[in-house]
Amino acid sequence: MDVFDLIIIGAGPGGYIAAERAGSLGKNVLLIERDQMGGVCTNLGCIPTKSLLNAAKLYRSAQESEKMGVTATSVDFNLTTAMKWKQETVETLRSGITFLMKNAKVTVVFGEAVCLDANHVQVGKTVYEGTDLIIATGSSPAVPPIPGHDLPHVVTSNEILSIEKLPTSLAIIGGGVIGVEFASFFASVGVKVSIIEMMDEILPMMDGEFAKLMRREMKPVEFRLGCKVTEITRDGVKYTDAKGAVQNQAADMVLLSVGRKPNLEALQALNLDTNRLGVVVDDQLRTNIPHVYAIGDVNGKSLLAHSASRMAEVVVANLYGENKQKMRYQAIPWAVYGIPEAAGCGLTESEAKKSGREIVTATTQMRANGRFLAEHGKRAAGLCKVVADAKTKAILGVHLLGPYSSEIIYGAAAIIEAELRIKDVKEIVFPHPSVSEIIRDTLFAIEGTL
Amino acid sequence: MDVFDLIIIGAGPGGYIAAERAGSLGKNVLLIERDQMGGVCTNLGCIPTKSLLNAAKLYRSAQESEKMGVTATSVDFNLTTAMKWKQETVETLRSGITFLMKNAKVTVVFGEAVCLDANHVQVGKTVYEGTDLIIATGSSPAVPPIPGHDLPHVVTSNEILSIEKLPTSLAIIGGGVIGVEFASFFASVGVKVSIIEMMDEILPMMDGEFAKLMRREMKPVEFRLGCKVTEITRDGVKYTDAKGAVQNQAADMVLLSVGRKPNLEALQALNLDTNRLGVVVDDQLRTNIPHVYAIGDVNGKSLLAHSASRMAEVVVANLYGENKQKMRYQAIPWAVYGIPEAAGCGLTESEAKKSGREIVTATTQMRANGRFLAEHGKRAAGLCKVVADAKTKAILGVHLLGPYSSEIIYGAAAIIEAELRIKDVKEIVFPHPSVSEIIRDTLFAIEGTL
Repeated sequence: MDVFDLIIIGAGPGGYIAAERAGSLGKNVLLIERDQMGGVCTNLGCIPTKSLLNAAKLYRSAQESEKMGVTATSVDFNLTTAMKWKQETVETLRSGITFLMKNAKVTVVFGEAVCLDANHVQVGKTVYEGTDLIIATGSSPAVPPIPGHDLPHVVTSNEILSIEKLPTSLAIIGGGVIGVEFASFFASVGVKVSIIEMMDEILPMMDGEFAKLMRREMKPVEFRLGCKVTEITRDGVKYTDAKGAVQNQAADMVLLSVGRKPNLEALQALNLDTNRLGVVVDDQLRTNIPHVYAIGDVNGKSLLAHSASRMAEVVVANLYGENKQKMRYQAIPWAVYGIPEAAGCGLTESEAKKSGREIVTATTQMRANGRFLAEHGKRAAGLCKVVADAKTKAILGVHLLGPYSSEIIYGAAAIIEAELRIKDVKEIVFPHPSVSEIIRDTLFAIEGTL
Repeated sequence: MDVFDLIIIGAGPGGYIAAERAGSLGKNVLLIERDQMGGVCTNLGCIPTKSLLNAAKLYRSAQESEKMGVTATSVDFNLTTAMKWKQETVETLRSGITFLMKNAKVTVVFGEAVCLDANHVQVGKTVYEGTDLIIATGSSPAVPPIPGHDLPHVVTSNEILSIEKLPTSLAIIGGGVIGVEFASFFASVGVKVSIIEMMDEILPMMDGEFAKLMRREMKPVEFRLGCKVTEITRDGVKYTDAKGAVQNQAADMVLLSVGRKPNLEALQALNLDTNRLGVVVDDQLRTNIPHVYAIGDVNGKSLLAHSASRMAEVVVANLYGENKQKMRYQAIPWAVYGIPEAAGCGLTESEAKKSGREIVTATTQMRANGRFLAEHGKRAAGLCKVVADAKTKAILGVHLLGPYSSEIIYGAAAIIEAELRIKDVKEIVFPHPSVSEIIRDTLFAIEGTL
C-alpha cells in the first residue's frame, strides 16, 4: 500500500495550494481529483467567467467610446471565438497547476475518492494510506426542487459556460455574485436578461446603497426582487411577486444560481460533524476527527477561491511549519467582476452596527476622482464607503463600486489586517491620478483633520 | 491691507491641497494662481495625459480584440473629439477644485505673485500680508539650448496637449515618464514615434529589467539610447549615437521632454537657499527663511503630484495640527500610464544594493497570473519584482509592469509604510483572480515557507 504524509481530496484552489505548499516542504503528498486540475475555480468559475466578462467589456467599450474619439462600425461579438479564448485560458492555467504539482513532487491521481477512515482513501481499486487528510472537495450548484428545473433549457453555472449559441432572453434565478456576473456578461452582448431574486436586494454581502446603484448601472437588466419562483416552464419562469401577484418572466434560457451545496459524497464513512453549510471546522480547519481537515467550499465558511487557498496554507503551516496560524475571516476581500465591478473587504456599515460597535463612516462619489473622470466622464457613477471604529479609528471595512475595484481591494485587506487607523492611512501616499485615491479621500471625508 | 493666516502661491496639487486643509481647519487662507486652478497636474499634466492615454487604449483594444470574439471594422481615432473629451475632463476637475476652495472658505486671487518678504506678497497693485507663506509655484518644462529648439514644430508637453492634427512622425527628446507616456499615446494612434535618450536606458526610476521589457512592449516605438542631440532641424533631429556616429532622425514634430525646472520667478526678493533642483527644504518642508515653506516641484525633492499634496498636508499639520509630521520619501509610489502601464514603490534592487543592505528578491512573470492570462493571453508580458531586507524580511520595494499597475501600487505603499514583513503579507488574503495577487506570489517565490 502506498503511504503518504498527506492525502488531499480535491484539486481546486484549496487542494492544489495545500499540495503545493506541503510538497515544497518535502512532504510526500497525494492529491486526488475526480474531474480536472484546478477545480471549479479554474474550470467552471473564477477564470472562465472573467475571461468572458473581459470580452464583454471590450465589446461594450468598442461600441461606447465615440465620445472619447474612438469610432468603429459593425462591432460584433462572436461567442464561439470568445469561448475558444476562454477555453485556452483555462487549459493554460490547468497545465500551470500540473506543472506546479510536478515541481513540488506531488503524486496526482484522477478518480472518485472514497474515504474509508481518517487514514485510508480508496480510488478505484487502490487504497492509499496517509497520516493526515485534507478534504477540499468543494461545492456544486444547488438545484432547488422547483417544478421544471430539469427542462432542457434550464442550466446551472456549469452548463452555461459551454453553450454554443447565445439565447435571445435569459432569466436568472438568484441575484448573488454568480447571477450578477452572468447577467453582466449576457446583457452586455445583447441578450435580454432578467434576474429573479427572493430577497429584497441582490448581492447580500454588499452594502445596500451599493447594491441599489449596482442595479441601476446594470440597466438594461430587469430585476424582480422579493419574488418567489414557483415553476419553470418551456417558455419562461412563473413567480409570485413582492405583492403576491402571480407573474411570468418569458425566457428561452433559465440559469439557476441560487447557491451552492458542499460535496460530501466521498466522506460518508468518516462520521464527520456537518451542518447545513458543510463540514464543521474550528479556526484551524480541524474537523471533529483527528488528522482530518476540511478547507474551502466544503466547510461553507467562505465560498471564495482565495479563502480556500488561505485555509490550505493555515493547515499546512500548522502541520509542518514553525509559524502556527489561525484562519481569520475579518479581512477577506470579495469582488464582483460585473459591469461595473464592485469589491469589498471587512464589515459593511450595517454589519458593524449590528455588532454593537460605535462607528464612523463616509461615502464618496467616484465622479470627483480624476482618473475616473478622465476615463468615464462626469455622468458615470461609482462609490467608495469606509467604515471605521468611532473610538480607536481603526478601519473596519472598505467598499468600492466602480472600475478597478477588484484590483484595488487587496490594499484594503492589508490595511485592515495591519489594523491601521484613519490617521495612519492618511499618511500613506496614494498615486495620482488613480481610482485608488478615493479610499484616502473618503478617510478625509470621515475626519478632515490632519 | 488684507491679512491672512496663510498665503499660498500656486494652485496645483500642492497649493490647493494646502489651502483646502488649512481652510477646513478654519484658517484664513489666500491662494494665488497666475494661470489656472489645478496647476500643471490638472491642466497640462496628469489629467489631460491620462484622458488621452485612455482613449488610445480603447482605440487599440477595439482593433486587437478579435481573438477574444470582438470584431469591428473601420476603427478610427478622431483627435478633435479626444481633445474635446480631455478638455471637458480638465474643466470638470478645475470646477471641482474651485468648489473645494469655496467650501473651505479660501480666498483665491488670480495673477502673478511677487514675494516682497516672508510676510508680504504683491499681486498687481495689491499687497497681501500673511503670517505663514507656502511656495507651491511648481515647475515648467526645461528647454535645453539645442540649436533649433525654437523652431515652430518643436513643442514641450504644454503645447503638445493642444495640437489640432496628429503629426506623421514624432521625435521625442528624453525618455523619462513624460516622453514615454506621449510615445505610448502617439504610437498607439498611428504616429511613427522615436525616443532619443542620452542615458543608456529609459525611465531612470525603473528597475533595469523592467525598463528593457517596457521598451520591447512599446514596439513600434524606436528607441535611440545613449544618444546626444546636437541640433533640431526643419525635418528632424541630429544626434550623435552611442558609437559616436552622427545620425539624423526624421520627424515632422519634435517633443522636448528632457526634464523640468523649478518656477522661482516670484521668489527673488526672499533670498531663499536654492540648489540645482530648486528651493532647499528640510523634512518639514521649511526653507532657510522662518515662516516660509516650499512644497511640490519647486523644491525638486519628488516631482509627483501626490508628493506635492502630501507635502502640503505635512506643512499644514505642523502649522495647525496636533499631529506633528515629517515628510517621508521611502514609500511614494510612481506610475507610468503608458501602454503597458508600470508602477513602483520603494527601493529598486540596484538602489537597495547601493545602500549596502543585504537583500532578497524575486521576479515573477504575469503570464502565470489567472486574470492576466484571461485578459491578455499567454503570449503577453508583464513582471512583478519584490525587494526585501534579507535580515528583517521587511518589504523595501515593489515593482510592477502590466495592466492595473497604477491602481495596485498604493497597496505596496501601505505595506512599506506599515513596515510589513514577507510573513505578514503572506497572511493577507488577496482576491482571486486579480493581477494584484502577483505581489503575494512573488513573496512565495522569495521564501516558499509558510
